[in-house]
Amino acid sequence: MKRVYNFSAGPAVLPEEVLQEAAAEMLDYRGSGMSVMEMSHRSKVFEEILYTAEQDLRDLANIPKDYEVLFLQGGTSLQFAMIPMNLMKNGEADYIITGLWSKKAYVEALKYGKINKIASSEDANFSYIPDCSDLPVSSSADYIHICENNTIYGTKFNQLPNTKGKVLVSDVSSCFLSEPFDISKYGVAYAGVQKNVGPAGVQIVIIRKDLISRDLANYVPSMMDYHIHNKAESLYNTPPTYGIYICGKVFKWLKSIGGLESMKKINEEKAAILYNYLDISEMFRGTAKKKDRSVMNVPFVTGNPELDSIFLKEAEAVGLVNLKGHRTTGGMRASIYNAMPIDGVEKLVAFMRDFEERYASFNPTT
Amino acid sequence: MKRVYNFSAGPAVLPEEVLQEAAAEMLDYRGSGMSVMEMSHRSKVFEEILYTAEQDLRDLANIPKDYEVLFLQGGTSLQFAMIPMNLMKNGEADYIITGLWSKKAYVEALKYGKINKIASSEDANFSYIPDCSDLPVSSSADYIHICENNTIYGTKFNQLPNTKGKVLVSDVSSCFLSEPFDISKYGVAYAGVQKNVGPAGVQIVIIRKDLISRDLANYVPSMMDYHIHNKAESLYNTPPTYGIYICGKVFKWLKSIGGLESMKKINEEKAAILYNYLDISEMFRGTAKKKDRSVMNVPFVTGNPELDSIFLKEAEAVGLVNLKGHRTTGGMRASIYNAMPIDGVEKLVAFMRDFEERYASFNPTT
Repeated sequence: MKRVYNFSAGPAVLPEEVLQEAAAEMLDYRGSGMSVMEMSHRSKVFEEILYTAEQDLRDLANIPKDYEVLFLQGGTSLQFAMIPMNLMKNGEADYIITGLWSKKAYVEALKYGKINKIASSEDANFSYIPDCSDLPVSSSADYIHICENNTIYGTKFNQLPNTKGKVLVSDVSSCFLSEPFDISKYGVAYAGVQKNVGPAGVQIVIIRKDLISRDLANYVPSMMDYHIHNKAESLYNTPPTYGIYICGKVFKWLKSIGGLESMKKINEEKAAILYNYLDISEMFRGTAKKKDRSVMNVPFVTGNPELDSIFLKEAEAVGLVNLKGHRTTGGMRASIYNAMPIDGVEKLVAFMRDFEERYASFNPTT
Repeated sequence: MKRVYNFSAGPAVLPEEVLQEAAAEMLDYRGSGMSVMEMSHRSKVFEEILYTAEQDLRDLANIPKDYEVLFLQGGTSLQFAMIPMNLMKNGEADYIITGLWSKKAYVEALKYGKINKIASSEDANFSYIPDCSDLPVSSSADYIHICENNTIYGTKFNQLPNTKGKVLVSDVSSCFLSEPFDISKYGVAYAGVQKNVGPAGVQIVIIRKDLISRDLANYVPSMMDYHIHNKAESLYNTPPTYGIYICGKVFKWLKSIGGLESMKKINEEKAAILYNYLDISEMFRGTAKKKDRSVMNVPFVTGNPELDSIFLKEAEAVGLVNLKGHRTTGGMRASIYNAMPIDGVEKLVAFMRDFEERYASFNPTT
């Protein structure tokens, strides 16, 4: 069996222990005589998987009873419509634009109300997080929306915006469970699990109970109504059972390594290895503004597309894969999510050092 | 390792070979050094999985180029809204009600236009399929909707309705790929895969190209727009990659046993074993009208809830599990999907015979 170091931005690396357990249980989950894929979602054995996953997540992130945890389908892109459909009361919301995904959320929300762009970092290709300490928050805004960690650009809100009392709604997909967070600061925190938690196809929505409305527009599909999903405890229709099962295993793994405080330390250690090198390298440089750097996604460039290209090819040959940057930024990006071992980051930096030496006097052909 | 015979209505039994392969490839998919769960959906290796799955499905079911095949999320329940959102032009559609699911589809569609109930079998707890040879089809109906196989009640449209030239839209979830079908008779055939094809969380939509509209109501979420998904070739957002991979394996398995003609023969053989016994048994009887019987889902009762209950308990003890009928029908239900081996049905009938002998003189306590 071969394993590479997979720096994919998502779907992404999962803990090897989780995959090993899943493989071992594939034909017979703990004496049930069947795979989790084959289980009725209404069976006791699956209900236990679902409820244990929810409880473990609540334990890990200290989620109190006045917040609901929903396991849904449709990805973050479906949430971009569900959020305004469910949260609009005054028909107005404020959006902060810090990348492609927050922009997509903004564009989708335009269908459902008056949407104000109250801050943006598009002027510098989203390489920073705007100052959000004193924004022109709209007096009748139902909520303020952010994308907390910007996967493509490697930036993160290392301080949450001052919402001036308005509800904060945050797409936390690519930083979810990478560190402790205080859910009481959010109205809704939602995450596609395919970055830090599990296989694509599961969406986790943590929502403050009082924000779940029963009074939605008539055109809202039942599957997009938080109240319906909540009443049914994420079993309104057949949920993505196998994906939820893998998420549950990842929650157990997080507990086993000491929870989110420990995870944060490990993640900071990994990121420091890479950023420290980027800050002294004469060939590579990080593209995100230092104070806004993400601990999860680290984009960097040589400044020369031809050299970037050679780097990517050689890295892949030694088992450092999926390092290509997003098409809108070019260059490289190392996503170093929870499940990326320190060893992977050390190997990457060792390779970068070696590459820098070997190509120090590189002259582009064009 | 223990394996039971799992008669669950869905999620349901999968071919053991498929699960074995999935387990073997869990940590390293064919030398890629990663699990399919960990792969970028934009990577070549995953794109090949997706395109191969689509091509194998097209081969199996003879789907021509003027039909698109979409792999989506959200389940059949999301389609209940997507269908009218995407197909309504005149704002009118006809629905045939043959069970809980077609009723749910009808109720959801009411949000989006004038919906006519043109036939129903609710008068006899959905135990039959109404005569659909000469229905009062609405002249301006954009489509006629059916649920082709009724999982709960064990009925199937063994003949498709006469739509009088209107587009037929069919929820084929629980009969999908159980036998050959002529897609040219349908405008849309859609299926949740968790019955016959794969793990919950993948929705397959086969749609005639000319029905994909670009002119939808403003409130339609991007994720519910067939045109957007089709243009992106099912990669508009991160699809449920692992589920699609398992579906692909099931398609290969179907090919390996000789395709849908062979599958149909096996399924008919399995169903005959069970129905033949039900027709001679003095204790058990099937609840669906004979001419409308499903080959996939076989509901039956003893007529005595106490005896049903003992039967279910004893069956489970010998590894015949998930035989409990739906709460709306009571009694038992054996779902004998593609992946249920003949052996499983033989064991079930042998157990039923034995049970009938042992409890021939059963007197209920109440």
